[in-house]
Amino acid sequence: MPLSRLSLIAATLTTALLASTSSQADVDKAIEYRQDALGVMAWQIGPLGDMAQGKIDYDAETFARRAENLAAVAPLPWEGFVEGSLRGDDHGVDTDALADIAEDWEDFESRQQTLIEETATLAELARGDDFAAMRRQVATVADTCKGCHDNYRAE
Amino acid sequence: MPLSRLSLIAATLTTALLASTSSQADVDKAIEYRQDALGVMAWQIGPLGDMAQGKIDYDAETFARRAENLAAVAPLPWEGFVEGSLRGDDHGVDTDALADIAEDWEDFESRQQTLIEETATLAELARGDDFAAMRRQVATVADTCKGCHDNYRAE
Repeated sequence: MPLSRLSLIAATLTTALLASTSSQADVDKAIEYRQDALGVMAWQIGPLGDMAQGKIDYDAETFARRAENLAAVAPLPWEGFVEGSLRGDDHGVDTDALADIAEDWEDFESRQQTLIEETATLAELARGDDFAAMRRQVATVADTCKGCHDNYRAE
Repeated sequence: MPLSRLSLIAATLTTALLASTSSQADVDKAIEYRQDALGVMAWQIGPLGDMAQGKIDYDAETFARRAENLAAVAPLPWEGFVEGSLRGDDHGVDTDALADIAEDWEDFESRQQTLIEETATLAELARGDDFAAMRRQVATVADTCKGCHDNYRAE
């Protein structure tokens, strides 16, 4: 990922701080959007995890493509965390996103940035031929996902 | 978008031809995945359309970022069109994807490739400063979406 894109992302994250939205319908759409984006990430990482764990054979082209897709989508979900869109807020869509996110916004934002960077590293490694390093990096990405889920997602 | 990525995409599309999956649960997940990916695209294109139509002010950074996001996600939904995942097939998730997709697979695949290319063109234009060209290209992308919906999505 070129630096210019990371800069754009950083700018986005800064301005996305629980952005105000104009209606409950907008909040509902934002929740659905972030769930969609996270769903795409889950789908893309699935085979990467399976290859890293030896459940399916490593295929260089598939691995590289999915790693690139994952890195491309990693910056996207976060703009969906708009004001009023967490558990306990008044909206029409179920969400597992805990109210702690608003209280710990800086930590949540820092975890977003870590995920963006770790997936970019995975995509870079996937263009090479060090599969051991790719496997370790898949574990790092998965741990990054899990860290946020453990802290900010309802059981 | 670098040529290498377009080549990867082309390879993916070729091998994705109504790929066999192993269970109804897999089919359901594939339907949800493609709906997620298309939902992300709809979210990203929204403000591009609003800027192109003058409903909101043109903002170069936002326009470029969303155009890049759109181009990054455009190759993703199609692997979710697996065998047995269309209307009339036996699966557990509602879908608007008509059975005609399987009958006209080559046309459907060609439309995917057109969308990938048109969104890549939009992202490229968005890095420049010709807003009139960007507006025209947003219309082209929207028409590409609509063409496929008109043919292959239930009303």
